[in-house]
Amino acid sequence: MTDNKAEIEAIRPFGLARSTVQGEPLTKEEIQKYNDFFKASLYLSLGMIYLRENPLLREPLKAEHIKARQLGHFGSAPGQIFTYMHFNRLIKKYDLDALFISGPGHGAPAVLSQAYLEGTYSEVYPEKTEDPEGMQVFFKQFSFPGGIGSHATPETPGSIHEGGELGYSVSHAFGTVFDHPNLISLTMVGDGEAETGPLATAWHSTKFLNPICDGAVLPVLHLNGYKINNPTLLARITHKELEQLFLGYGWQPYFVEGDDIDTMHQAMAATLEHCVQEIKKFQKQARDSGVPFRPRWPMIVLRTPKGWTAPRQINGHYLEGFWRSHQVPITDAKTNPASLKTLEEWMRSYEPDRIFGKEGRISAELKELCPTGLSRMSANPVANGGQLTKPLKMPDFRDYAIKVDKAGAVNEGAMQNFAKFLRDIVKNNPTNFRIWGPDETESNKLGAVYEAGKKAWLGEYFEEDADGGNLSPFGRVMEMLSEHTCEGWLEGYLLTGRHGFLNSYEPFIHVIDSMVNQHCKWLEKCLEVEWRAKVPSLNILLTAVVWRQDHNGFTHQDPGFLDVVANKSPEVVRIYLPPDGNCLLSVMDHCFRSSNYVNVIVADKQNHLQFLTMEQAVEHCTKGIGIWPQFSTDAGVEPDLVMASCGDVSTHESLAAIDLLLQHFPELKIRCVNVVDMFKLISHTDHPHGLTDAEWVALFTDNTPIIFNFHSYPWLVHRLTYKRPGTMNIHVRGKAPPLVPLLTWGSLIPIHH
Amino acid sequence: MTDNKAEIEAIRPFGLARSTVQGEPLTKEEIQKYNDFFKASLYLSLGMIYLRENPLLREPLKAEHIKARQLGHFGSAPGQIFTYMHFNRLIKKYDLDALFISGPGHGAPAVLSQAYLEGTYSEVYPEKTEDPEGMQVFFKQFSFPGGIGSHATPETPGSIHEGGELGYSVSHAFGTVFDHPNLISLTMVGDGEAETGPLATAWHSTKFLNPICDGAVLPVLHLNGYKINNPTLLARITHKELEQLFLGYGWQPYFVEGDDIDTMHQAMAATLEHCVQEIKKFQKQARDSGVPFRPRWPMIVLRTPKGWTAPRQINGHYLEGFWRSHQVPITDAKTNPASLKTLEEWMRSYEPDRIFGKEGRISAELKELCPTGLSRMSANPVANGGQLTKPLKMPDFRDYAIKVDKAGAVNEGAMQNFAKFLRDIVKNNPTNFRIWGPDETESNKLGAVYEAGKKAWLGEYFEEDADGGNLSPFGRVMEMLSEHTCEGWLEGYLLTGRHGFLNSYEPFIHVIDSMVNQHCKWLEKCLEVEWRAKVPSLNILLTAVVWRQDHNGFTHQDPGFLDVVANKSPEVVRIYLPPDGNCLLSVMDHCFRSSNYVNVIVADKQNHLQFLTMEQAVEHCTKGIGIWPQFSTDAGVEPDLVMASCGDVSTHESLAAIDLLLQHFPELKIRCVNVVDMFKLISHTDHPHGLTDAEWVALFTDNTPIIFNFHSYPWLVHRLTYKRPGTMNIHVRGKAPPLVPLLTWGSLIPIHH
Repeated sequence: MTDNKAEIEAIRPFGLARSTVQGEPLTKEEIQKYNDFFKASLYLSLGMIYLRENPLLREPLKAEHIKARQLGHFGSAPGQIFTYMHFNRLIKKYDLDALFISGPGHGAPAVLSQAYLEGTYSEVYPEKTEDPEGMQVFFKQFSFPGGIGSHATPETPGSIHEGGELGYSVSHAFGTVFDHPNLISLTMVGDGEAETGPLATAWHSTKFLNPICDGAVLPVLHLNGYKINNPTLLARITHKELEQLFLGYGWQPYFVEGDDIDTMHQAMAATLEHCVQEIKKFQKQARDSGVPFRPRWPMIVLRTPKGWTAPRQINGHYLEGFWRSHQVPITDAKTNPASLKTLEEWMRSYEPDRIFGKEGRISAELKELCPTGLSRMSANPVANGGQLTKPLKMPDFRDYAIKVDKAGAVNEGAMQNFAKFLRDIVKNNPTNFRIWGPDETESNKLGAVYEAGKKAWLGEYFEEDADGGNLSPFGRVMEMLSEHTCEGWLEGYLLTGRHGFLNSYEPFIHVIDSMVNQHCKWLEKCLEVEWRAKVPSLNILLTAVVWRQDHNGFTHQDPGFLDVVANKSPEVVRIYLPPDGNCLLSVMDHCFRSSNYVNVIVADKQNHLQFLTMEQAVEHCTKGIGIWPQFSTDAGVEPDLVMASCGDVSTHESLAAIDLLLQHFPELKIRCVNVVDMFKLISHTDHPHGLTDAEWVALFTDNTPIIFNFHSYPWLVHRLTYKRPGTMNIHVRGKAPPLVPLLTWGSLIPIHH
Repeated sequence: MTDNKAEIEAIRPFGLARSTVQGEPLTKEEIQKYNDFFKASLYLSLGMIYLRENPLLREPLKAEHIKARQLGHFGSAPGQIFTYMHFNRLIKKYDLDALFISGPGHGAPAVLSQAYLEGTYSEVYPEKTEDPEGMQVFFKQFSFPGGIGSHATPETPGSIHEGGELGYSVSHAFGTVFDHPNLISLTMVGDGEAETGPLATAWHSTKFLNPICDGAVLPVLHLNGYKINNPTLLARITHKELEQLFLGYGWQPYFVEGDDIDTMHQAMAATLEHCVQEIKKFQKQARDSGVPFRPRWPMIVLRTPKGWTAPRQINGHYLEGFWRSHQVPITDAKTNPASLKTLEEWMRSYEPDRIFGKEGRISAELKELCPTGLSRMSANPVANGGQLTKPLKMPDFRDYAIKVDKAGAVNEGAMQNFAKFLRDIVKNNPTNFRIWGPDETESNKLGAVYEAGKKAWLGEYFEEDADGGNLSPFGRVMEMLSEHTCEGWLEGYLLTGRHGFLNSYEPFIHVIDSMVNQHCKWLEKCLEVEWRAKVPSLNILLTAVVWRQDHNGFTHQDPGFLDVVANKSPEVVRIYLPPDGNCLLSVMDHCFRSSNYVNVIVADKQNHLQFLTMEQAVEHCTKGIGIWPQFSTDAGVEPDLVMASCGDVSTHESLAAIDLLLQHFPELKIRCVNVVDMFKLISHTDHPHGLTDAEWVALFTDNTPIIFNFHSYPWLVHRLTYKRPGTMNIHVRGKAPPLVPLLTWGSLIPIHH
């Protein structure tokens, strides 16, 4: 809150362009073309929001041409369009491999209009032709339920980032460029989004980016100035502070500020080109020398008015340059003739007649501003990553088997053993597989992976690091104490066709509940989009489980992530609780080979009794659920009791309980059932893995008491089984504040059976 | 990755103190005293981790004195202790009202040892006396299941911030000082924690802090250098970058770096004092002038070695100044005699004999370094906020009733109406109630609140703001596009005895699943801590609900937060789904008067048919569940069908379905049951609100089909009711990917009944 007027003026988005990089790379003719292209795209953006008929305003605009319910957001479109189209020049000039990531919320008008002008949209959706009829369909379906979404949804060609929930554009972008040395991900970051925690820390991602083997992210922070109804923080601090912030984050910020269109064209063209040259220079330096380093990567701060090119005021109220332009800028166009007229004048200011011409499409001359074929950002195959995916080169997991001569006699660490398998996957797949974890990989007993790939680190090195630090600029394990950033990186990596794996403490995975939810929804929607190829699954291994956290206390105890995941579509979620080390190997092998799922695997990292040989484990995991005859006493007869379990600690406890029961009641006919695949419990009509009721009864009977010892909250079992025959016989023991588990830590009884 | 050796040396935590602020405020004698106090506290920290007997090493240390399982974390303790004790000098000198917030994970040895040395611990827990016997109990119980936690748990006097899940220290700290003009919250921020998203954006909180009516946060970023097993990002960037980062965040960073203890004492004492003076200067300037402004608030970067004062190397491996000192620094002391000896030598280097003397407590001279009574940070009543809480001055919610002459005939906005009640609560409680929301308060139709309290804003102002911007440095509504920061602020505000309210879009509340989980756990644990007074409830109002988000798309649809909340202890969670506007008023009135709960209220922001008069609403909400005779046709007879509903849209749909059914089957005896309070569904043995089975049967019968239309995922109803008589008769319709809701948006049928 300064009273220095010059300081305030310096952060207002108006006037002639002010930019760090000077230069006038464009001719007058080019400026004219960019103006026309800009108008074409802005016109389409408004058309999407407003028009159901009369798409090119060839008739005077009437109320009946306006959609009954106008939806969509205009505010951020102009700045995004401006950036996109100026980058196209550089894609052509330097033959760049580039992707566009649209961070600001509801940015679809910008990316859709660009995809339409580039021709990709009509190629992908042939009914949206580049003519008045196609344009009308395009407009009509926008923001209509079941139609075209108001974000860069899976249906949007060129998108790997929907932008519905804010905060993940930068981490997603970095995920796309790891191991894609030639890719530049041009990333629009909304200044609203920039206030979120996940975005605020994702700026640090450069400390994990190697200029030799990775590509580059070019962020454009769009200082639009406003959110839905508030100014944004970063648009209301001094120029100096903003510059320091990004210098502090390790970037080199280049400013482009103003609203005078012609000078802004020059400034943006010059600045983007300078940034591309900087990126290429750093990459060349590192690649020529073979010495990776962390340069000050360039980023752009684009300060333009929200709703740029909209009327500055309507009825005495600010529109352009204020939050009123966030969504539908004029809300009463259908009912108020004066507003309708204002809207029409505004839309005609983009000269649809001239620019779309007789045929209702832009001229070949204008189209030449766009790259062609797969060079178009809307058509880059990297955004349909499944097309590029190569299967992992997997060693045979059976080679890592824990030797189990006698069930329950060996005490070993499933995780420590799995680490060797994981290490060899890293070794076999040096450019398309990485491991992620928030500083817990070693703690989770997966340290063996460092033998094949160290931790990626482009920060400074100290002499102490030689003492087991396991750091390397070429590392394959990504560890930052931000579950958000790890998850965002991994999602970006998977969606562009590579494979990966996240390990985390079970209690803190709730930190990314929402991100995982959104990824599930993305995957689910992709199944409905014909042209999307399936991408490798998101594999989340949870350890440091609730039953082994007494010493760390209550904050470290929460097995509820499974409930969050189980709410998502059965088409995309899988939950596995392998009871021992060989089962863990078998499950992980399966997960790494799968695609389009979110696989959640829960396994403890401490030593445990081992129960199954590898052969038994494969059989058990293939079925996903089964009777364990070696721990049962009901051979050939009806059981008196079913002792079921799911989860490694829970299985151990359940077996101990069987043992105890048999000590006291040796005649008891007990059936031991173990569940690896949670969704076996649900009806086959609700999940593809579900058992039929006949299969259910064959395992659990419909008339026998079932004591079900479960890893997580007991309700999840009840919820999955509520329709089953004999459901009233199920007594679930699990984590629940008012209940006590069947047996608690410290009271485990060795298994004599 | 520089090859400039001087740059690397500048960011290594060794050598004589290097500090921004120069000065030698301490005499030699004082330095000696601080050294002794430091040693006393460090000794206690090690004792807690290792010793079960021989607490003062009056005998030679033997293996049997060592705990069977050594748990706890040493790494961050020295820096935290150092900061705490030097701030004590200023509390005494300036008579400060101060709180200590321990951000780094597992920081308990630091705060517990300080509380013990200050005497607070023995006052609160009389068996932990300040003598060898008390010390032994203290040591023994540390990090033992059911004993003393390894974080600043609710049992820790002076704590409002557990620090188990990382990332919330700064937002919590700001929450404590809003409307506490004299409070300084000294906040240790771990450099691991600083990598999390929530922490990275919380630095922006100063843009919402008014130096006139709010206190101050003094963050000390503890550049300890390492997390569990990795270097930290902020410790491995250049000095210049780090400085720029905090300047960019709007703070004035003061560095204190090195490991030479005597010079570090002077540097820390001088720096902390300078910061306190700066804070007082800014506050005075604003308060004298009446003109609030956003100064560059001071913050400290404390760079010391992890495990400072531990042996630098053991067996050729780095300990001090490396991640090996993170947790238990020497892990084989019980089994390896050489290690036992090393540990003993290390512990004796803190001179327990001399410092704790004959009586096993520090001398009166040393104790004089601490403040006394309530001035001790471990005894500040603000950290037991319930003690200070004043009930809200509530207007009568009945005065805001929506007039309902005929059920289902009025179409009004429940939220818009509630906003007036909320506005008047703001008006009546100008210093102990605030509203929080991530830029959605207006969108959520609560804009009327700005009539009583604008949005707090200490950023720059533009001329456009006068056009309905509703900004003010004295605002009472806190809006930042970070659910994490809003929630953190609110938690800090509540835990220090004030009231508040968070409004958010339903789909994005999952962003703070984990924070809400942790707050629930904190509240639950507090119930077991005798001296903790109950604090006002955390009230979360969810709107922009799933059934009204077709146009925003799939990312904006997720009602699953209720599942997360329902997993928490029944002692602390409440879920309400008021079916109409008068019920919303009644529910909110109840929530605002409650304490120690997390109240989740779900209500749509669009216009809806209104069903109940205020009198009926109060009766209905008081019961929490009930038959609606006005929509039922089973008067005096057994129903053929129970039509139950929970949630406003769901109720509307259910009533429409009743209407439709009666059009086709006019003789049908339908009973209409509505649920406001979700936990009525669960058994009274599992939740204090639960119905008995007899009560259940009186409403639902045990033999009639029940069609239950539910707001969220249907499983939640099944899970809550799985034990109920007639549970197999319940058919739940709700949000679920493979199912369709009973009626979807657009197909609502007007109610003729």
